Amino acid sequence: MAKAAIIGGGVIGGGWAARFLLNGWDVAIFDPDPQAPRKLDAILQNARASLPALSDLPMQAEGQLRFADTLAEAVAGADYIQESVPERLEMKHRVYAEIQRTAPNTPLGSSTSGFKPSELQDGARNPAAIFVAHPFNPVYLLPLVEIVPGPAHDAALIERVKGLLRDLGMFPLHLRMEIDAHIADRFLEAVWREALWLVKDGIATTEEIDEAIRMGFGLRWAQMGLFETYRIAGGEAGMKHFMAQFGPCLSSPWTKLMDVPEFNDALVDLIASQSDAQSGHHTIGELERIRDGNLVGFLRVLKERNWGAGKVLNDHDARRKSAMPAASTGPEPDMAAPLVLTQMQVLPGWIDYNGHMAESRYLFAASETSDALLRLIGADMTYVGGGHSYYTAESHITHLGEARLGDDLTGSVQVLGADDKRLHIFVTIARHKVPVATIEQILLHVDMKAGRTCPAAPAVLDRLLPIRDAHATLPRPAQAGRHVGERKS
Amino acid sequence: MAKAAIIGGGVIGGGWAARFLLNGWDVAIFDPDPQAPRKLDAILQNARASLPALSDLPMQAEGQLRFADTLAEAVAGADYIQESVPERLEMKHRVYAEIQRTAPNTPLGSSTSGFKPSELQDGARNPAAIFVAHPFNPVYLLPLVEIVPGPAHDAALIERVKGLLRDLGMFPLHLRMEIDAHIADRFLEAVWREALWLVKDGIATTEEIDEAIRMGFGLRWAQMGLFETYRIAGGEAGMKHFMAQFGPCLSSPWTKLMDVPEFNDALVDLIASQSDAQSGHHTIGELERIRDGNLVGFLRVLKERNWGAGKVLNDHDARRKSAMPAASTGPEPDMAAPLVLTQMQVLPGWIDYNGHMAESRYLFAASETSDALLRLIGADMTYVGGGHSYYTAESHITHLGEARLGDDLTGSVQVLGADDKRLHIFVTIARHKVPVATIEQILLHVDMKAGRTCPAAPAVLDRLLPIRDAHATLPRPAQAGRHVGERKS
Repeated sequence: MAKAAIIGGGVIGGGWAARFLLNGWDVAIFDPDPQAPRKLDAILQNARASLPALSDLPMQAEGQLRFADTLAEAVAGADYIQESVPERLEMKHRVYAEIQRTAPNTPLGSSTSGFKPSELQDGARNPAAIFVAHPFNPVYLLPLVEIVPGPAHDAALIERVKGLLRDLGMFPLHLRMEIDAHIADRFLEAVWREALWLVKDGIATTEEIDEAIRMGFGLRWAQMGLFETYRIAGGEAGMKHFMAQFGPCLSSPWTKLMDVPEFNDALVDLIASQSDAQSGHHTIGELERIRDGNLVGFLRVLKERNWGAGKVLNDHDARRKSAMPAASTGPEPDMAAPLVLTQMQVLPGWIDYNGHMAESRYLFAASETSDALLRLIGADMTYVGGGHSYYTAESHITHLGEARLGDDLTGSVQVLGADDKRLHIFVTIARHKVPVATIEQILLHVDMKAGRTCPAAPAVLDRLLPIRDAHATLPRPAQAGRHVGERKS
Repeated sequence: MAKAAIIGGGVIGGGWAARFLLNGWDVAIFDPDPQAPRKLDAILQNARASLPALSDLPMQAEGQLRFADTLAEAVAGADYIQESVPERLEMKHRVYAEIQRTAPNTPLGSSTSGFKPSELQDGARNPAAIFVAHPFNPVYLLPLVEIVPGPAHDAALIERVKGLLRDLGMFPLHLRMEIDAHIADRFLEAVWREALWLVKDGIATTEEIDEAIRMGFGLRWAQMGLFETYRIAGGEAGMKHFMAQFGPCLSSPWTKLMDVPEFNDALVDLIASQSDAQSGHHTIGELERIRDGNLVGFLRVLKERNWGAGKVLNDHDARRKSAMPAASTGPEPDMAAPLVLTQMQVLPGWIDYNGHMAESRYLFAASETSDALLRLIGADMTYVGGGHSYYTAESHITHLGEARLGDDLTGSVQVLGADDKRLHIFVTIARHKVPVATIEQILLHVDMKAGRTCPAAPAVLDRLLPIRDAHATLPRPAQAGRHVGERKS
């Protein structure tokens, strides 16, 4: 089991801890704040309620969480260290010195938004192990992490770190050179400054500014960035046209960004009181859950369309799936009983507006189970790659109960009949051994290129037909052979 | 029928025209470009494929579109005029003079991002009718429109315009005073300038910048703006804590925004070539459809959660519903034929390892269609919120073809039977009117809290039973009443 050390357990460090834990890593946290365990628990609850909804595969078992009494204890044996202490350089230097007394060669990423890696590395025992890994809140949901190596760096270590972060479902953006505020925060800073001017000058309230963002360009930027959006805005003529049309505006006196508003108590009070008026009817905890629900929704939309952050999620699922053991590598199941082939958990994305599992997800669970049967008889991905597969011709689903969020389900299959071209199965989806749905199906063996049925390969039939014969003695399920609307007999 | 005059039919003007037309307004366009009708047609096709997906009610009949030969002809008899001509002040003044010779008192909104209303009004016959109504591309989908009255203004006229724009499903943000670039474009301008520096200095490519936006803060800003996001980032301590933590960074030399990069051919070529490398494998038309599909997905997510732009959509639906005659939700579909209720496109996430649509997605498509039927008979989200719903008891699916990526599918439903508790339907998923799958289902009306069946509300039955009676004369589909494995008769 891989181990991550999280140094600093606030909003950002806690978000990192949640992402590592839910991806199966053990995590040791060091944070001297006595409130740290309580705060982390709140973050973990939010993460558990949202992150699993992003995957179509069951989650790994959560890793073990431990609060370390000392920095040295936290980093001992760690495969990765993430530092998220307050933005004071002398404090970071002190922390790095102590870390590198125990673990000088462990990759040490900093969540800093304010310091360049050269500043972080300054005076370190092993500067090449230190780099910027700047995430975005909520760390457990947003994919972006800016990776900025310093002047002293180990290219192989950076590549290893990027791979590791991808395995957490993140999108490492590797900056080619260090720069103040990296990339994203330069934009945030520019917008923040302009927004402070607008509030200070009484042009707009914090609420009006937020509406100006989320009702318009914010929606655009969740799926395309600045340049791709403007490429489209140029119409058929594209980017050059856009540049020609809007480029000259750059010299207009549009912004007040030549200067910085004085950051005094009056400005803080003005912003804070407007923010209270805008959002004060929700607690921070409520706002976090609203935000996370919205983000999960957006990310699922993008995932279905394999676009932007959704492509990151699909790639992550594909990597995880290919790393899973094939069903046939496990101990041979007892063939003379319905075969229990899948174990699933009901994910948030499976829930419909009635509050329980959407009907199409029962068929999805049955597909996962019939796919496991196909792998078991050797009709696996390699077989499909050779141009043959089983296609479903017909299905009949009965609903016997309602699965709910987080339920553990099993999928089992009974072979009702089979010959060289046809496979007739009966799948039961059960919760604690009580069926919640049954799915009867006919699958046909096809030559995919010719688009017609053909006999399965002998090696497949050699595995399938003995199961059929063993199942011939099982009682026929009551739901088999029913048509829709038939009265119970 | 209300009439809008659209002056200038490019990307923005065409977007306005589409929003008015699809909301039932007649539209007259004036644009001397001979390509204008062809360009508008492309925009209208995109709008028709996306805007109706935002409403849970049937759309109004589309208004009539006419290309006017003269400005005067376009604005004659118009209830509203929107100007989207190029950003040259003398041209706008010329256009306004001509408009106001014919229609001096008609509200005249300008799509300008570069000019203040005082500049637009300068020298006009009736300055009080002229104001800024600045929308965001794509105008037919994004709700934001900045309304900026000038020094001479008619408060009643501005309020009437805001109501009219709300009736188009938009979110008018009323600026309390005029300011260069209004609000949103000040932010876009700040980000744009900073981005140009990053590209010019070789820090990041256009693609890296876009990823830095859409993998991180772009996702946040589609649902909360700057201040609400930062309020959460402050953790439990909220806005004041955030300000204290990050406020001082303002004086750091984070951005290069004190200056403007020289806008020369070399910069244009650099940006355009990077943009080609990033997005050139998609045509602008493809990018528009990808963008619109993503935006519809986001907006539906927000609508389900009644948050941000989704609340605007819900409010819009509610206003439309309350304005409809009591017995009807719009033009009645032809009830004496299977009801075509959904239009879907096969998305990348729907494809299985065989390269075509996964079997569970056919049932998903059927659910979307049966949900549309339930909304049609009044068993909508409000009804579910009241504790009653229809649950599927049983389904039978036959596969007649293979849907592939990008296929356009329709879902239609025939009511085979219904009483106060049971609903027996037959859904056909078709591509170009050829069925690819059929789904026969029994749904039961349930009291969700008690967890048992009960009679549907009379208002629901009043809408359902006439459909049942009208469908009684339709031929019974061949696949209905089949059990799995039954030989074709």
